[in-house]
Amino acid sequence: MRNKKHIVVVGGGTGTYTVLQGLKRYKDTIDLSAIVAMTDSGGSTGRLRDEFGYLPVGDVRMALSALSYEDDAHGALIRKLFLHRFNTEGDIRGHNFGNLFLVALTDILGSEEEAIRAASQVLRVCGRVIPVTHTKTHLVATYSDGSVVIGEHFIDEPHADVAQKKISALTVTPSAVLSPNAQQVLHEADCIIFGPGDLYTSVLANCVVEGFKEVIQESNGKIVYIQNLMTKAGQTTNMTVSDHVCELTRYIGKTPDHILVNGTPLPADLRDRYAAEGEYPVVCDYAHMPVKPTIMDLLATEEIERKPGDVLKRSLIRHDSEKLGAAIIALFS
Amino acid sequence: MRNKKHIVVVGGGTGTYTVLQGLKRYKDTIDLSAIVAMTDSGGSTGRLRDEFGYLPVGDVRMALSALSYEDDAHGALIRKLFLHRFNTEGDIRGHNFGNLFLVALTDILGSEEEAIRAASQVLRVCGRVIPVTHTKTHLVATYSDGSVVIGEHFIDEPHADVAQKKISALTVTPSAVLSPNAQQVLHEADCIIFGPGDLYTSVLANCVVEGFKEVIQESNGKIVYIQNLMTKAGQTTNMTVSDHVCELTRYIGKTPDHILVNGTPLPADLRDRYAAEGEYPVVCDYAHMPVKPTIMDLLATEEIERKPGDVLKRSLIRHDSEKLGAAIIALFS
Repeated sequence: MRNKKHIVVVGGGTGTYTVLQGLKRYKDTIDLSAIVAMTDSGGSTGRLRDEFGYLPVGDVRMALSALSYEDDAHGALIRKLFLHRFNTEGDIRGHNFGNLFLVALTDILGSEEEAIRAASQVLRVCGRVIPVTHTKTHLVATYSDGSVVIGEHFIDEPHADVAQKKISALTVTPSAVLSPNAQQVLHEADCIIFGPGDLYTSVLANCVVEGFKEVIQESNGKIVYIQNLMTKAGQTTNMTVSDHVCELTRYIGKTPDHILVNGTPLPADLRDRYAAEGEYPVVCDYAHMPVKPTIMDLLATEEIERKPGDVLKRSLIRHDSEKLGAAIIALFS
Repeated sequence: MRNKKHIVVVGGGTGTYTVLQGLKRYKDTIDLSAIVAMTDSGGSTGRLRDEFGYLPVGDVRMALSALSYEDDAHGALIRKLFLHRFNTEGDIRGHNFGNLFLVALTDILGSEEEAIRAASQVLRVCGRVIPVTHTKTHLVATYSDGSVVIGEHFIDEPHADVAQKKISALTVTPSAVLSPNAQQVLHEADCIIFGPGDLYTSVLANCVVEGFKEVIQESNGKIVYIQNLMTKAGQTTNMTVSDHVCELTRYIGKTPDHILVNGTPLPADLRDRYAAEGEYPVVCDYAHMPVKPTIMDLLATEEIERKPGDVLKRSLIRHDSEKLGAAIIALFS
């Protein structure tokens, strides 16, 4: 019998990073696992996939960083190192040190699983980071007009002709199987958190793996959905909160038990910056929701400036990790 | 007042690696420092120098690895990781993970010195690894016929027309200054060890840094020279033990107090392999020596097979680290 609540965060990328950072503060009272998408195909990760045939490590790296021990100088340095992106000229430019670290460990230890285990030790990670699948696969988006785009980074940063279309179906090719560890923690979870994060390329990218929907059906864990603050060009343009919830429900086959929505108005100047890129605050149409959302202040008040190689570079408007953590914990008190 | 003898090993590369490994066993009774050459210009290190403008980290990496803690599984893994060379296709192929580790730390911490200090903590290094200089410089070999070659890796792996010539002068360009830490440990050393290792590109590459010869003059430390087993094509062809000792004496301005020479015959089949590359056992002409050499068994009996990315790949015939360590310690007993 476990004493601690087991919370599983499903996602990848900066949204998951923020949730994990928020929940890490409660590590003495909860068990924490992160299930991350394995369909990243851009940047440093994409190069390593293309050139080495490795599984994509970008989302693993982010989740490990979020959960790493940082309360002493050594921990803070190792974490900084793990997040470091080589930024000077040359053939390693743009590579993340953390990715190379995971690739080297995979070479030495012979499997991604062992590599993640070893990296978790080096980073003194609290909790577990679990790839949703060990199958090498790519994300496939079919749009409302029947057009198809393959590859996470093409879906994530779509051409102009795709940017206004709706994604009618998300799948992976070849089909991928849920990893045994992911299956186990989902099965045993007291709480399964989806979002925030790019709906299709981070959150649902996990849900389209074979076996995922089934284990969610069988799990007794409460489903929590954390709503994104902004729409994402080429993915969720014009989608309201209930549209997001409907999509999640369609892919996991279950209505969320809790929906967390930020209620604090977004600063006008930042909204303008996003609008220039075709991204807008997600409208909360809660009259149409299957379950009443919890609307509360979840907004980070500090403005985060974009810096080269910044982990949170896409998130000038973003959730506050402490507020998110506290909101999730409050659901169980 | 110090209780422990302070031993300083001067060099770089696999010879220094072997000595440090041997001396590490005595870490409870000695203080150990390694001063390493900063003129490496080949391989992964060379690419990082060319592309990033970093100081060369290859010899630092080797010395850190040699002195790293490896008595538990975590230590053994970190050390393996640090020595790992990416061997698959792609733009990071051939890079050493340890080099990238040092480069990332230098980026984050702002100086090579801080990077080495941090890496030493991660690797739980016993002793200190000290760059001979912080000046960015290249090795210059002037040959007996007046021809000049610039760059460590061109001297190390010379063209056929250079291979039979004698190096009449070794310098660096631009001139480089002895690092304060190197100066301090040499000044305070009880014992300063030169060799084994490529005479010009590893050992004397340290001695040609401005201030090195002067601090050796002033130091009260005993000078120990460990003679290479084999001549090195393009560097020490036809040179006897006394020729080696003469060259060292010329560059450091002092006669060694002890000369350690292996007396165990080298296996005929391995000698043949070296002969095919123009390399032969160094002849011990001790009648002409300024000090009587200590001739003893220093040979590794295990044959080391070349493997891709092998640290000791050039050393099929090599010194035994345990025998070397014991021989050095015996000099002070």
